[in-house]
Amino acid sequence: MKKNILYAQSGGVTPVINATACGVIETARKNHDKIGKVYAGKDGIIGILREELIDTSRESKTAVTALRHTPGGAFGSCRYKLKSIEESKREYERLIEVLHAHDIGYFFYNGGGDSADTAHKVSQIGKKMGFPVQCIGVPKTIDNDLPITDNCPGFGSVAKYVAVSILEASLDVESMASSSTKVFILEVMGRHAGWIAAASGLVAREEGDPPHVILFPEVPFKQREFLRKVKHAVANYGYCSIVVSEGVRNGRGQFLADAGTRDAFGHAQLGGVAPVLANIVREKLGYKYHWAVSDYLQRSARHVASKVDVEQAYAVGASAVEFALQGKTGVMPVIKRVSNNPYRWKIDEVSLGRVANREKMMPKSYITADGMGITPAARRYLAPLIRGEDYPPYDRDGLPKYVRMKKVLVKKKLPEFEV
Amino acid sequence: MKKNILYAQSGGVTPVINATACGVIETARKNHDKIGKVYAGKDGIIGILREELIDTSRESKTAVTALRHTPGGAFGSCRYKLKSIEESKREYERLIEVLHAHDIGYFFYNGGGDSADTAHKVSQIGKKMGFPVQCIGVPKTIDNDLPITDNCPGFGSVAKYVAVSILEASLDVESMASSSTKVFILEVMGRHAGWIAAASGLVAREEGDPPHVILFPEVPFKQREFLRKVKHAVANYGYCSIVVSEGVRNGRGQFLADAGTRDAFGHAQLGGVAPVLANIVREKLGYKYHWAVSDYLQRSARHVASKVDVEQAYAVGASAVEFALQGKTGVMPVIKRVSNNPYRWKIDEVSLGRVANREKMMPKSYITADGMGITPAARRYLAPLIRGEDYPPYDRDGLPKYVRMKKVLVKKKLPEFEV
Repeated sequence: MKKNILYAQSGGVTPVINATACGVIETARKNHDKIGKVYAGKDGIIGILREELIDTSRESKTAVTALRHTPGGAFGSCRYKLKSIEESKREYERLIEVLHAHDIGYFFYNGGGDSADTAHKVSQIGKKMGFPVQCIGVPKTIDNDLPITDNCPGFGSVAKYVAVSILEASLDVESMASSSTKVFILEVMGRHAGWIAAASGLVAREEGDPPHVILFPEVPFKQREFLRKVKHAVANYGYCSIVVSEGVRNGRGQFLADAGTRDAFGHAQLGGVAPVLANIVREKLGYKYHWAVSDYLQRSARHVASKVDVEQAYAVGASAVEFALQGKTGVMPVIKRVSNNPYRWKIDEVSLGRVANREKMMPKSYITADGMGITPAARRYLAPLIRGEDYPPYDRDGLPKYVRMKKVLVKKKLPEFEV
Repeated sequence: MKKNILYAQSGGVTPVINATACGVIETARKNHDKIGKVYAGKDGIIGILREELIDTSRESKTAVTALRHTPGGAFGSCRYKLKSIEESKREYERLIEVLHAHDIGYFFYNGGGDSADTAHKVSQIGKKMGFPVQCIGVPKTIDNDLPITDNCPGFGSVAKYVAVSILEASLDVESMASSSTKVFILEVMGRHAGWIAAASGLVAREEGDPPHVILFPEVPFKQREFLRKVKHAVANYGYCSIVVSEGVRNGRGQFLADAGTRDAFGHAQLGGVAPVLANIVREKLGYKYHWAVSDYLQRSARHVASKVDVEQAYAVGASAVEFALQGKTGVMPVIKRVSNNPYRWKIDEVSLGRVANREKMMPKSYITADGMGITPAARRYLAPLIRGEDYPPYDRDGLPKYVRMKKVLVKKKLPEFEV
């Protein structure tokens, strides 16, 4: 008898996580002789625990195709980490019960390191409980911090957004710098790893090109060196364009974003390293400044996605189905770079245990000696990932045609479960 | 003898002000039998006062064509307002001297209300000084606050950026709201007029669609009503998506952005109404929130420009040349809406005196009774302005091919002048 697939999205969504879902569903539909239905956990693993399974067979072919160009998480996602098998025994057993009740033969968990860990454990415990299910991790994270895979689906599009944005804003600032704003600061995501900030460096091809300063979480903030570099850029290029990771810390390991700003009631004000840097520039150098915080905009900007990223996101979804059909379990499809020039990549396979709970930081060799720029090695790595455009279709009113799923739930068979 | 054109960009730049420059230069080149060269003031009117004139005949055809898709101000712009003829007599006389020295027959000033006023005065004083020059104002402002013209070139592209961005970020927030961020706040430009914020309302087509709250500078902020609406959205749609104009004020007329936030040294922290609102949401409702400040990104996002906007920006530039050839002076080409359905527009002509120093606010009939949304009338007005896509070309590395001018200066003929 044909088994069903259960697919779930996990953690922060990306501009292309739905392209992965599209790859899963379209590939499963092509193999309808071997695979039953594709269910999706409503709001991720929480929905699975609650037995809220979306029946994707109720979504039209057109709607599924449109997933490829729709940002956000079309079936819902959540931040919910299962702990060790001992600590989260109740949840793991419930998961297996739900999988069993709905004839799930394949569990695809689309997320980062934590999700790989969970998928790994589900595969182990299923076996132990006498209900073997093929568990496949599917990589996704804008942070690009998964090990082994050359890069993570989701990252390339955020990288492209950040690079295009700093290029455009810098042209704006440059054109008025002689009499107006001289320093522009763009805050981007990256709590631990500076990959996203690093991507902005792709814009700087020649002496004087923006961004002039990039601040990484990997490098402790040194105010004097920072100010010297800002001053140098303003003196030599007329303006200074800065990209800063939200996770930048001072020499004592404190987040710059948390350092000092209080609201009217004396509470520490959360978030926003850009305004903190802006204040430093104002107080120490007196330049007129502007700052932007792109926040979720960068993480959902499907309108300026990288074609390479969309293709890779689709491919890991499609490969998960192929791995399943090949009888594999406890694995993850990853991206392997075959060559840089021309850029070529293929899907490779790695065991989940090797991916789980490990973060990939920027190598030291990717950061310039002064700690505020990227090296040619970083450029060689990053450049191919933002290549190509893959625009969503727009309606006649000028807005992207993003799709919403119907989200028809499968009938429940089990008792309620408190999550 | 053929006279030259002097073109200058003024004030804040837009994603499409260079499309206007492109319209001017290409149309002048087509009429090379009647028109001499096109000079551009380096960094706007400051460059003219300093006799720093860029000779655009030194820019290649390809470079000029690329202006159409390049954001920022390609010749530089500035914020420098000439006052009354009495107060700024020295500057006006210098302007005329520069125009005279370089055989300028046509002065095109590309800006907002202040620039229209300056162009108007230059036309008057030139006549008085016996050096008549045809002065033509060319409209530009992202704020959409010029009177008479149906809309301002620059606005449509910012409107499209804001609408696309809030649509995408809302999809992101919605997909994780059940366990994570419930309130998302996007701060947009608009110190006095809420046109940009209003454009985000185009996304809300059906009950429950984002944005759920729009805050305009025209409507005093009422905290209780605001919180009630946020709570309602979270209760009914699972999340709340908010767009706020930077210029929103409280009932006492103070900018919300200035109200209360202090840095570690007790200085008022400038800028950022989004974090102020976020703090209110946190303290009063306790929802998890995220906020974004798009700042210059919105004003330079040529990558997601409105096709209608690009075409209109080009058309006002081309029309300025045609007006000049028709012997007109003291006028501005403006956009006249011919019909809504289908949307049709044409270039009309208005005297500069009628445009100068008047701001066009959002009509009351465009804002819903609760002050936090847009009406069908606003939608009918706004919708056509974001229609159509007009992508810049990208290079093979995945970055837009924006052009830089060579900016070769014309030889000076006059003594130095202190600006």
